[in-house]
Amino acid sequence: MGEIHAIRKEEPMIASELSDGILLLTLQNPPANALSLAMMQMLLDLLLSAREDDRVHVIILRSGLKLFSAGHDLKEMTAHRSDEDRGRAFFEATMRLCAELMQEIVRHPRPVIASVDGLATAAGCQLVASCDLAICSDKSTFCTPGVNIGLFCSTPMVALSRNVSRKQAMEMLLTGETIDASTAREFGLVNRVVPQEYLNQIVRKYAQSIAAKSPLTVKIGKEAFYRQLEMGLTAAYDYAAGIMVENMLARDAEEGINAFIEKRSPEWKGE
Amino acid sequence: MGEIHAIRKEEPMIASELSDGILLLTLQNPPANALSLAMMQMLLDLLLSAREDDRVHVIILRSGLKLFSAGHDLKEMTAHRSDEDRGRAFFEATMRLCAELMQEIVRHPRPVIASVDGLATAAGCQLVASCDLAICSDKSTFCTPGVNIGLFCSTPMVALSRNVSRKQAMEMLLTGETIDASTAREFGLVNRVVPQEYLNQIVRKYAQSIAAKSPLTVKIGKEAFYRQLEMGLTAAYDYAAGIMVENMLARDAEEGINAFIEKRSPEWKGE
Amino acid sequence: MGEIHAIRKEEPMIASELSDGILLLTLQNPPANALSLAMMQMLLDLLLSAREDDRVHVIILRSGLKLFSAGHDLKEMTAHRSDEDRGRAFFEATMRLCAELMQEIVRHPRPVIASVDGLATAAGCQLVASCDLAICSDKSTFCTPGVNIGLFCSTPMVALSRNVSRKQAMEMLLTGETIDASTAREFGLVNRVVPQEYLNQIVRKYAQSIAAKSPLTVKIGKEAFYRQLEMGLTAAYDYAAGIMVENMLARDAEEGINAFIEKRSPEWKGE
Repeated sequence: MGEIHAIRKEEPMIASELSDGILLLTLQNPPANALSLAMMQMLLDLLLSAREDDRVHVIILRSGLKLFSAGHDLKEMTAHRSDEDRGRAFFEATMRLCAELMQEIVRHPRPVIASVDGLATAAGCQLVASCDLAICSDKSTFCTPGVNIGLFCSTPMVALSRNVSRKQAMEMLLTGETIDASTAREFGLVNRVVPQEYLNQIVRKYAQSIAAKSPLTVKIGKEAFYRQLEMGLTAAYDYAAGIMVENMLARDAEEGINAFIEKRSPEWKGE
Repeated sequence: MGEIHAIRKEEPMIASELSDGILLLTLQNPPANALSLAMMQMLLDLLLSAREDDRVHVIILRSGLKLFSAGHDLKEMTAHRSDEDRGRAFFEATMRLCAELMQEIVRHPRPVIASVDGLATAAGCQLVASCDLAICSDKSTFCTPGVNIGLFCSTPMVALSRNVSRKQAMEMLLTGETIDASTAREFGLVNRVVPQEYLNQIVRKYAQSIAAKSPLTVKIGKEAFYRQLEMGLTAAYDYAAGIMVENMLARDAEEGINAFIEKRSPEWKGE
Repeated sequence: MGEIHAIRKEEPMIASELSDGILLLTLQNPPANALSLAMMQMLLDLLLSAREDDRVHVIILRSGLKLFSAGHDLKEMTAHRSDEDRGRAFFEATMRLCAELMQEIVRHPRPVIASVDGLATAAGCQLVASCDLAICSDKSTFCTPGVNIGLFCSTPMVALSRNVSRKQAMEMLLTGETIDASTAREFGLVNRVVPQEYLNQIVRKYAQSIAAKSPLTVKIGKEAFYRQLEMGLTAAYDYAAGIMVENMLARDAEEGINAFIEKRSPEWKGE
């Protein structure tokens, strides 16, 4: 991994910009926003730093290129076939890092919104599926085409199959065919489809509305959401009831409920 | 809880009416059908009594007010902040009872149909999600807006996230925004949207068609449905195959199949 | 089961035809393609044989009659009520074989596509739900009407409830009502609805596109898909990452990725 860290460009592979509680992460690794080892590590590091930064209330993940992301860096991976172990160690490192990155999005205390314009394919599609919310332009397309190149999209499908129904996921995975934005919405892969020219504006407004909530409340709720999803009904209720009580006793819930009853705006302290 | 039981009104908070095998429960706790501790206990008690009543084949849950239900009673909860424990015991009792009520709907041997007209919010939305079936008027709206008052809808989301897809649930929970009836149907939160003026008539006809089935068969099937959902495929098939054999050996299946083969109407005995 | 194997007809109950990597299985057990014990055993045997046949890349399951399948053979089952054990042993054998057949479809190394025209009911609907993919004609209808004859569709619901949402499944199961092709697509029970006159042509083209992929890759992916679905997120990623590394090291992935980079067609060896 020494060589990878030696990569230097004028522009960083991911531009990071914070304003109004919104951390805007712009992927710009030409030509296809390939999720190389370095790119994934950089994104993971940015997410981990944002955990510690109280100013960050919401994260937007978008691309600065004409597509969202074409997934793993096949050239980088292929180059490692000449390693002594035929690339096994590198492939393992890649898949381990990819799994860590995708799970970091899910486990991150802040909501992560994918803002998609153009093609999101393979691990690029997985990135969208892994985000809590996704808004895409009407020019966006999605696919998991690994099967066409002999490499089934087995890690992308972990995220995909938790977003879309079984037969829909299987169709994308077995045929490798591309679906358009409105199909992606119908399948549940994205929340909203908006005109391309308004994408940034709409995503920002959407992010602002979430950034205005109590960050503590959002953090409690997001974590509980994914945890209870993996439980049976009784365990989920036992767990969620406990979460609800703790949330009620937090200062922000007291303030929020009082403000609601008194018909005024709440002032969050994040505690 | 002594004070709560002291509440007295001319009308009961829940009107209960049985005819043609249909138990019609009408929530009428003005102004917003708040699910206070007393209201939840009354609904739970009515459901538990209906378990023992063979005349009940189907249950309809509806509101007698202009909205379906606005969820927990925030004023009641806030009043308990002055308790010595800052309300912890009361909040725990509320959440425990709420979880018990919602699970009683799922575990009840009779199908429970939500008949919704107007707003169903927070625990009111959870009530709809917890029912086996839901029909709503075209004037109905749904939301889980706890995040706006600092109290994430963590128990409502247990039911919601088992009805609608991950990103759709997350959008409702993180933005607190309201969805309309047709969106609720698209998301899978309700089965049908009907014109407001025909709601009662359509729901009754729908309930009658279910009330006309063998109550034993319906009971076997409803219980098996939720149990197998929490199993892996092999365990689910092992379990369901056993259920199917017992069902075949019941008198009502023999009668039903004979009636079908002989092209006549079956006569159920519920055994 | 000796008697059953004694059944002889001019035509086999299931016609089997292999060409271009596609195994076409045509159900033809008049009048309703009842899934009798013999019919299910024959279908299971054909699927098991296809496991060993490298020429088979994809399987299409269709009907040669005017409907897809009406499910279990009620007359056969009823006849066994006069057995000493009131049919218990026969019902058990039927349900065990049905569960085995449906799971064999899921576990089969080749994708199984249901090609549906006309009615698919009860275990016939389960057969569609169990397939990896399903395409139906616009004249197709689906239902799980066991509740009408006192026998809840408890095994069909295992497959159904893993295809469609909770309330939608409950509606089909509790009312027994029939849904049309476009509703089935909306619910996620089928992938595509096509004009009846083009059904065979479109399904074949669809199957050909999958048959042209590396059979090894498809096999790896299909197995991983269903296994990871039953895991929590972390376990699913750990498992899928390992699958991905093994897939990368397979000859077909190397060939497929090289062909992609070199902009040529890959040549699969299935290894």
